Amino acid sequence: MTRSTSPVQGRPDPAARTVTSASSTVVARRTSRDIRSDSRLDVLHAVLSAGETTRNALAQSTGLSLATVVTVVNELLAEGIIEEKKEMAAGRIGRPTALIGMNTDRGFVVGIDVAETYVRAVMFDTALNEVLSVESARDEHLLDPDSVVEGIGRTLDHLLDAAGVSRSEVLGVGIALPGLIQGPEGVSVVVPNWTWQKVELERLRERVGLPLVIENPLKSIAIAELWLGGGRRFSSLATVNLGTGVGAGIVLEGRILRGATNTAGEWGHTLLVLDGRRCRCGRRGCVESYIGAPGIQETLREIDPAHPLVDLDMQNDFILALAAVADGPEPDPAVTETIGRTAYYLGSALADLVAVINPEGVTLTGWTTWALGEHLMPATRRHLLEQSPGASARDVELEISTVRGNSVATGVATVVLERFLVDAGLLTSNIPVAL
Amino acid sequence: MTRSTSPVQGRPDPAARTVTSASSTVVARRTSRDIRSDSRLDVLHAVLSAGETTRNALAQSTGLSLATVVTVVNELLAEGIIEEKKEMAAGRIGRPTALIGMNTDRGFVVGIDVAETYVRAVMFDTALNEVLSVESARDEHLLDPDSVVEGIGRTLDHLLDAAGVSRSEVLGVGIALPGLIQGPEGVSVVVPNWTWQKVELERLRERVGLPLVIENPLKSIAIAELWLGGGRRFSSLATVNLGTGVGAGIVLEGRILRGATNTAGEWGHTLLVLDGRRCRCGRRGCVESYIGAPGIQETLREIDPAHPLVDLDMQNDFILALAAVADGPEPDPAVTETIGRTAYYLGSALADLVAVINPEGVTLTGWTTWALGEHLMPATRRHLLEQSPGASARDVELEISTVRGNSVATGVATVVLERFLVDAGLLTSNIPVAL
Ligand SMILES: [Zn+2]
Ligand SMILES: [Zn+2]
Repeated sequence: MTRSTSPVQGRPDPAARTVTSASSTVVARRTSRDIRSDSRLDVLHAVLSAGETTRNALAQSTGLSLATVVTVVNELLAEGIIEEKKEMAAGRIGRPTALIGMNTDRGFVVGIDVAETYVRAVMFDTALNEVLSVESARDEHLLDPDSVVEGIGRTLDHLLDAAGVSRSEVLGVGIALPGLIQGPEGVSVVVPNWTWQKVELERLRERVGLPLVIENPLKSIAIAELWLGGGRRFSSLATVNLGTGVGAGIVLEGRILRGATNTAGEWGHTLLVLDGRRCRCGRRGCVESYIGAPGIQETLREIDPAHPLVDLDMQNDFILALAAVADGPEPDPAVTETIGRTAYYLGSALADLVAVINPEGVTLTGWTTWALGEHLMPATRRHLLEQSPGASARDVELEISTVRGNSVATGVATVVLERFLVDAGLLTSNIPVAL
Repeated sequence: MTRSTSPVQGRPDPAARTVTSASSTVVARRTSRDIRSDSRLDVLHAVLSAGETTRNALAQSTGLSLATVVTVVNELLAEGIIEEKKEMAAGRIGRPTALIGMNTDRGFVVGIDVAETYVRAVMFDTALNEVLSVESARDEHLLDPDSVVEGIGRTLDHLLDAAGVSRSEVLGVGIALPGLIQGPEGVSVVVPNWTWQKVELERLRERVGLPLVIENPLKSIAIAELWLGGGRRFSSLATVNLGTGVGAGIVLEGRILRGATNTAGEWGHTLLVLDGRRCRCGRRGCVESYIGAPGIQETLREIDPAHPLVDLDMQNDFILALAAVADGPEPDPAVTETIGRTAYYLGSALADLVAVINPEGVTLTGWTTWALGEHLMPATRRHLLEQSPGASARDVELEISTVRGNSVATGVATVVLERFLVDAGLLTSNIPVAL
């Protein structure tokens, strides 16, 4: 028993900022944006997500009153953002059951995924339907700043040429860049082996010559999931991208978790095995070095060094070949064992993510998921449930994302569309990183 | 090059909830609480944090105008929540430089930490100064629900007796319970080996016989840090508790991260080494099995099985003895190596936490920190910086918490105080888990 009459708490600098812990348990669906803008955003999200819908369905899906939906829809119709699909709706215009959708005559938005092995530019209409996609392989010159800018610019030019779309028809371009960070001195790009700085982002803006937003790839996949995927059902979720690299886009209370320097979600470089495999980030034992595509190939090599798939040169070919063997009629014990171990690694690493952020849902995305996801899912789910502490995974839903295609490009194109609506005065909002 | 005219995005259930991603990058300091209540909360936080302060200093620390501070202070004075320290302030009452502090004549609040090896009840005045603390060792009967309730109740009775305080003078009691989860069916407590259910919480409420809040221990330390520690300087931080168990209380954008089932922050049961040491949670290789107090003893055993400290029976004794040897004049290579490895394990595990949530600050708390923190810090900081991916740890501040004493009890007592102010109509707020 101790007795003390003096304060035991620390007394920090009274001039420091105050915080508000009081409402820490409330899931705040609405932020400080004004309500009218919120209604518009909710309706737009719902229209985009549904493709074609009705005023009645919008009222249901947004939770807004039918009267509010009618008002917002009329405003958005008048501004030409959405349109009534007259040809499909028999009867009087404006009735609650008339079909409405995004007005796709407004132009196009472009999302560009600048990845390790390629630059992919995808054109979408304003309903976020994919129109055309162009991919350039990364060449050895792509690492210096000028070549990166020129590689992106040329890929964009190719896309516009191939689509027969002029720059004046493009509402904006979004570029997802690895290593994008937000610091006190502004935005910069820091990727090992790359030498980008803020000034090169200015050069990128000049080369693109269109309204531009840039975004981190993990945040982009989370945005795609938020607008078009599991984010419509879960207020908190982790979208896990499986490809060459692996990482997580995290949504909490319906918002993207960015972190102090915009680098939250680097789950791919958390430990699976202290002092384990060497990761390309320089650390040893990262999750990515086990379940990134090269890591999966390494697992097969450990199991059967003489297996023919061990020698496949291209990561994507390797993953597709692995899936083909797994789908085939001939059982291949080394492939089965590789998939089993990968599911163990993945489920264990997902349990770590669930332990820390305790989300409602986890969705898997990326080209490894498209190829191997169905093979990995049952065992991954079992390992996740077995290894998550306490009740953290009790209700978690693990699923393959419904947002197919390149979700990095889709996500960053979504930001472009939103930015366009803000710039046009149709939404009040804040865009992550805009140039 | 691929061409597609059909949508590639998934079309989820249009009846599902909508989400708002637009403002995802904005650090929303204010939530939907009304502004007046926010000002009161900010002023109360600042008064509590400062101990004694002035209207001028409050305006500075809260960012509110002096006029607003004067209004709020007058209201809080009229309600008897705060008081002017007349004896210390020479001159006219009400002037901007007069000293004000919490009115400690209002009564007491109690925080109870129900831990693995003890039940500790701490009485605070309404300025959150510790008045008295009572600890009961946990006995073998403490695992069944009735005994847990009675153990808590008896510890509270001891505290009131020893302090000579009647129940009518106590504004409320907060209890931090491990395994507290929030599910669709309400609140329940799920701890391995414990058999609590919701009904026992009702019995707990009856036994305590005072206004009661319950809270998870990791959330409690985060609340203490938010009100009284690093939370005053950082909008996002992880408070890492090092004791028998280890875990993290996470604050994002000034709010506690709870997670879908109130179990976010279980960083102690994320992997350090896949298939490594057996953890008491049942998983293998958890962080806790390396840097929890028994884990540190295990490290010493691995280094020198014959070392005399290996045989120390009590965890707390072991940690204090380790610190004493490290502080002593005789170098002990096994102890030096144990501390070095522990710093490596801790820094590596903190790098994982920083990789995922990318906070502004990380503070260490708990009795292992009080004993060994200074020995661990330099190497831990180095490992954290070396192992965090990209720029995630570039600006992170790692420090030992300034909230000393039992921060679990302090945190849950803070919630009690806030709850009292809400119940008295002095704040509009939401309390985590109240019975
Ligand atoms: Zn790595
Ligand atoms: Zn564990």
